Amino acid sequence: MRILITGGAGFIGSHLCDRFLADGQHVIAVDNLLTGSPRNIQHLAGRADFEFIQHDVTEGLKVDGPLDAVLHFASPASPSLTAPTSYMQLPLETLRVGSLGTFNALDLARAKNARFLMASTSEIYGDPLEHPQKETYWGHVDSIGPRSVYDEAKRFSEALTMAYHRKHGLATRIVRIFNTYGPRMQLDDGRVVPNFVGQALRGQPLTVYGDGSQTRSFCYVADLVEGLVKLLASDEPTPVNLGNPREVTIREFAEVINTLTGNTAGIEVLPASRTAGDPQRRRPDISKAARVLGWEPRTPLEAGLRHTIAYFQGVIAN
Amino acid sequence: MRILITGGAGFIGSHLCDRFLADGQHVIAVDNLLTGSPRNIQHLAGRADFEFIQHDVTEGLKVDGPLDAVLHFASPASPSLTAPTSYMQLPLETLRVGSLGTFNALDLARAKNARFLMASTSEIYGDPLEHPQKETYWGHVDSIGPRSVYDEAKRFSEALTMAYHRKHGLATRIVRIFNTYGPRMQLDDGRVVPNFVGQALRGQPLTVYGDGSQTRSFCYVADLVEGLVKLLASDEPTPVNLGNPREVTIREFAEVINTLTGNTAGIEVLPASRTAGDPQRRRPDISKAARVLGWEPRTPLEAGLRHTIAYFQGVIAN
Repeated sequence: MRILITGGAGFIGSHLCDRFLADGQHVIAVDNLLTGSPRNIQHLAGRADFEFIQHDVTEGLKVDGPLDAVLHFASPASPSLTAPTSYMQLPLETLRVGSLGTFNALDLARAKNARFLMASTSEIYGDPLEHPQKETYWGHVDSIGPRSVYDEAKRFSEALTMAYHRKHGLATRIVRIFNTYGPRMQLDDGRVVPNFVGQALRGQPLTVYGDGSQTRSFCYVADLVEGLVKLLASDEPTPVNLGNPREVTIREFAEVINTLTGNTAGIEVLPASRTAGDPQRRRPDISKAARVLGWEPRTPLEAGLRHTIAYFQGVIAN
Repeated sequence: MRILITGGAGFIGSHLCDRFLADGQHVIAVDNLLTGSPRNIQHLAGRADFEFIQHDVTEGLKVDGPLDAVLHFASPASPSLTAPTSYMQLPLETLRVGSLGTFNALDLARAKNARFLMASTSEIYGDPLEHPQKETYWGHVDSIGPRSVYDEAKRFSEALTMAYHRKHGLATRIVRIFNTYGPRMQLDDGRVVPNFVGQALRGQPLTVYGDGSQTRSFCYVADLVEGLVKLLASDEPTPVNLGNPREVTIREFAEVINTLTGNTAGIEVLPASRTAGDPQRRRPDISKAARVLGWEPRTPLEAGLRHTIAYFQGVIAN
C-alpha cells in the first residue's frame, strides 16, 4: 500500500510512519513543520519506501502516483495557553487546517480512490456532562470560547468527513483520540507528561496545580497506533474513540515519574489555575473499539513512561 | 457608508440591501445565485448606490474602494430534506461557504478595516436541552448527523469570527438568527411558511404533521433587519440572539393562514415525520438584544403574514 499522512512529522503522525513502514507499506509524510519536527522522522531519511514533503496542506494537496490511504493528522494539538506550538497561540492556523486542510485531504483521497482517516479528538466532547464519553454523546462545547479554535475545527472536520462519505461514497474513518503520551511529545508543549518528565530530569519538583486529585486518562502512543491501523482496515465510517479508560490522578502520575527518574525533589503544589475551559475530567468509553476493532490498550503506565523518559533523556542530552 | 453583503440576493440579504439603501448607504451585494435569486434584487438594478457582483465568496473576495462594513449572509439555509436549495441537498457547498467563505469575508473586512457581521443561527443550539435559549447556552449538536453540514459550519464560523476578533482586533458582530419569515422566501424551499402559504393560495388543505401542537417562533423579516442594523452599530462582539420569542403552534399558524387567504380547504393531518434531527422546539431568549440593542420584534403575526401572502400571490401570478 501507498499511504499518505498529513502531519507526518508530528507526534502521532511520525509513529504512524514508523508503523506502516514496519508493516511493509510505502509512506509519504506531508508536514509544514509548524508544530511537527524534522527530528521525529530523521531516522527515516534515505529510505526508498519513505518520502517527506514539506508542505502546508491548506495550500492544496497533490501527489503523483496511486494512493491507498490518506490519514489526516495535521493540526496544532496542544491546549497550552503559552506554548508556541499550542492551538491557543496558532488559532487561525488551527481553524485553517481543520477546514481547508481537511477539504484538501479529502479531495486527494477522492481523486485517488483512497481510504480516508480523519484524526478527531476527545475535545469534540468539550467539557462533558456525561462520563465516560461514548461516541453517541454529542458533547458540550462553547463555540466562541478560546478553545473553540480547536474544538470547532475538529467538529467541522467530522461533519465534512461524513458529508464526503454520504455525498461521494468515500470510504472514511473518524477516530476520536483521547490523551496520548510517548516519545516525540515536545518538551515545551505545555502538556502534563512532558512537563513532569522535563522537571524530573532536571531534578526539579513537579508542579501540581490544586490538590492533584483531578484525573487524566493517558494512552501510550504504540497502543493508539495499533488502534489506528485496525480502524483504517475496518469498515466503520462513524467515529470510534481510542484512548485509555484507566483514570490516573495527576498526583499519582507525578509520583510514578519521580520514582522512575529517581527524582528526589518531590512535588510542588500551586493553587489551581485552569486553562480557560480546561475540562476537569475526560475518560473514553472504548466499548465500541473493543467490539468493532477488537482493540484495547495493553501497555502498562509504568512501561509507557519508561520509554517516554528514555526519549526525553536523549532529547535533553543532545 | 459603503456596505458589502454576501448572500445579498438571498431572503434576508436582499432585505438588508433595501434597508441600507433606504438609510442612504452605498450597498454592494455579492451572491453566486446558488440559493439566492436575481428576482430579490431586480428592483434595485440601475441604482447608482447599488452594485451587484455575481460571485462565489469561497473563491476569494476582493472589491475596489473603501468598505465600512461586511455582512456575511451567504449560505444555503433551508433544512428541508428535499428542496433543491436546502443545505441537505448542498452539503459540501454549505460547509465550504461556512469555512472558506467566512475566511474570505473576514479577510476582506480586515483589509478594508471594516466592521464584520456574521450571520449565525439558532441551529448552533441544535436540539436544545434548555428553553428558551440564552446566548450562554452551548448547544446540543450532533457533529456527524445530516444537519451537521449547516450546524457545524455555523459553529465553525462563530469560532473563526471570534478568533479574528481576538487575534486581529477586528470589530466583529455575531447574530444568531431564529426562524424568520416574510416576502422573498422561496415557495419551494421546504419551510413551513412558504409551504402553508403556497398550499393556501392553491386552495389546497395545509399539511400538518403529527398533532400540530409542536411550536415555532417566527420573526418577521423587517423586525430582524431592524435588529441587525442595531447590532452592526453596537459595540457587542459576542453573539446576540435575534428572533421572536412568541411561540405559535403549527396548527395555529395554519389556521391563521387559511383565514387570511380565505382558503376553505382546511388542514390535512399526516403522521409525524420529522426531518432527521429536526428539533421539536426552539425559542430565543432575547433579553440580551433588549438590553444591549434596545430591540424587540414589533410586527404582529397577522400583519407579517399579510405582507408575506401578498408577496407569494405576486410570485404565483407571474
